Amino acid sequence: MAEHVLDKSKIHNKWDNRIAPALKVEPGDIVHFETDEVTGGQVRPGAPASVLMNLDFDKLYPLGGPIYVKGAAPGDTLEVEILSFKPLEWGWAGLIPGLGLLKDDFTEPYIRYFDLTEGQTTALRDDIRIPIQPFCGTMGVATDDEGPFDVLPPTRGAGNIDTRHLNAGARLHLPVFVEGALFSAGDCHAAQGDGEVCVTGIECPMAFSLRFNVIKGQAIPGFRYRFFTPPGPIQPAYDWAGYYVTTALGPDLFVNAQNAVRDMIEWLGKEKNLSPEDAYILCSVAADLRISQIVDAPNWSVSAYMPLSVFR
Amino acid sequence: MAEHVLDKSKIHNKWDNRIAPALKVEPGDIVHFETDEVTGGQVRPGAPASVLMNLDFDKLYPLGGPIYVKGAAPGDTLEVEILSFKPLEWGWAGLIPGLGLLKDDFTEPYIRYFDLTEGQTTALRDDIRIPIQPFCGTMGVATDDEGPFDVLPPTRGAGNIDTRHLNAGARLHLPVFVEGALFSAGDCHAAQGDGEVCVTGIECPMAFSLRFNVIKGQAIPGFRYRFFTPPGPIQPAYDWAGYYVTTALGPDLFVNAQNAVRDMIEWLGKEKNLSPEDAYILCSVAADLRISQIVDAPNWSVSAYMPLSVFR
Repeated sequence: MAEHVLDKSKIHNKWDNRIAPALKVEPGDIVHFETDEVTGGQVRPGAPASVLMNLDFDKLYPLGGPIYVKGAAPGDTLEVEILSFKPLEWGWAGLIPGLGLLKDDFTEPYIRYFDLTEGQTTALRDDIRIPIQPFCGTMGVATDDEGPFDVLPPTRGAGNIDTRHLNAGARLHLPVFVEGALFSAGDCHAAQGDGEVCVTGIECPMAFSLRFNVIKGQAIPGFRYRFFTPPGPIQPAYDWAGYYVTTALGPDLFVNAQNAVRDMIEWLGKEKNLSPEDAYILCSVAADLRISQIVDAPNWSVSAYMPLSVFR
Repeated sequence: MAEHVLDKSKIHNKWDNRIAPALKVEPGDIVHFETDEVTGGQVRPGAPASVLMNLDFDKLYPLGGPIYVKGAAPGDTLEVEILSFKPLEWGWAGLIPGLGLLKDDFTEPYIRYFDLTEGQTTALRDDIRIPIQPFCGTMGVATDDEGPFDVLPPTRGAGNIDTRHLNAGARLHLPVFVEGALFSAGDCHAAQGDGEVCVTGIECPMAFSLRFNVIKGQAIPGFRYRFFTPPGPIQPAYDWAGYYVTTALGPDLFVNAQNAVRDMIEWLGKEKNLSPEDAYILCSVAADLRISQIVDAPNWSVSAYMPLSVFR
């Protein structure tokens, strides 16, 4: 078992199976990554929200990789053991016109910065503290489709999956489409709720370490992934005080999610004196979208769960 | 503050604002309910699955009520404090042809019975134990629409919302459409995961107690409800061992939910030697559907979380 440090310059911004491997590793090896936040340096602490109007989309998603895992072949499963995360000092969350669950409600850019040196939480306001629970927003493999492909849409090989419980101790299973799997990761979040409703978590530069294994002959279909969360409760720092929950009923799960979040934003304004923009960001970085029931036709329930632990 | 025992004979099976109140209470009063399981006695322990083919739908959903809460008027919010539950000895879960998230995959009736006298868990198999975390599958109010209406579809006044975290200690907020609110409840579950994917939780006769309050002049739109979960973690008996998670990506949240559950059923068959029918039931009574991300267009992530604590 070897450990490798991936040179920080070894990044790419598109999925493309023609990109040469940045590193070749044996199954069982560990790779230490360090990646910039999702805009690749276009956002820096204190920059005005207008920076989000002029993003160069070709520089988004600086991903570390590709990692070639020896022995991985099409039809195998790549297992990624998620070993550790270290957020690098600061993060941001924002509203980007044209993106997000409520893109028609919020049309102006908006940005907030977070100090990630304060310990186990980071403040949205003095009395609103978000537990830090880091993960890679993007982990995936190159597919056998001819690229390049933008990273924002998840692909058959996963990628921008923004799944909050892929924390240290988790094991992610991904399909393999090409020899060596060609895995890449980055787009790290210090915290994010299920849904990532405003389109950002707390985006931050991050150091992280992953171990790679190959499960031979066990295929996963495209557009699927599977994982084990770490042993123990999945979000104890969020969970201990209970939740305020807003639920919307109706035949369209997407619309229900929108309405549940709208209700939560209204409550946060009224009860916690948050602006709509800050409330939307708080939903994105801390609240969870759950499908409460999907069988009582025609009106399914989608719920937004806000952890009351964030209010101090 | 008075306590009332609702006579067990005071049930109704449709939403209809013309049904006379079973009880009139003051704000702050407590009502002790006892209701049969969702089929109103058509299912009894040991009955064959074929009973699910011949259900009299007019006898489904025996709800205790209506409760007339004095002072509640259209435009107010009814607060229901959920005080306690006592499952009454046994429960069932089953597959009902034509219903459920995977109704096209499972077309035959199937039924399992559960012993609810064993303490804090109930067994699907000797080595698979489901924590008991009871709630009312149905809580709602009559609307100002002219009835009668079936209970299966949730209405503007909520009703069959099957929301697993409405446990003892929670406070539910519902809209009020008619004088006195006309609240009813029943359809109790000893356990259920978010989604209730096979269309039943562990359905059981239940004794439960609720307190009613009126929040004057605070309106909730129809097809919405809101609640505070009890203080503390929301599902600690499920949460302590981590989860196995299957996720499906794609533009349709409903299809993603189907595919995530299909993947989980496959895993339960392979790893836990469960039949597809038992695996589907285990998903319904113990696994949670979460929307991991709903912003990475066009491929949203829906995840099924199976608590590993159920495997002993």
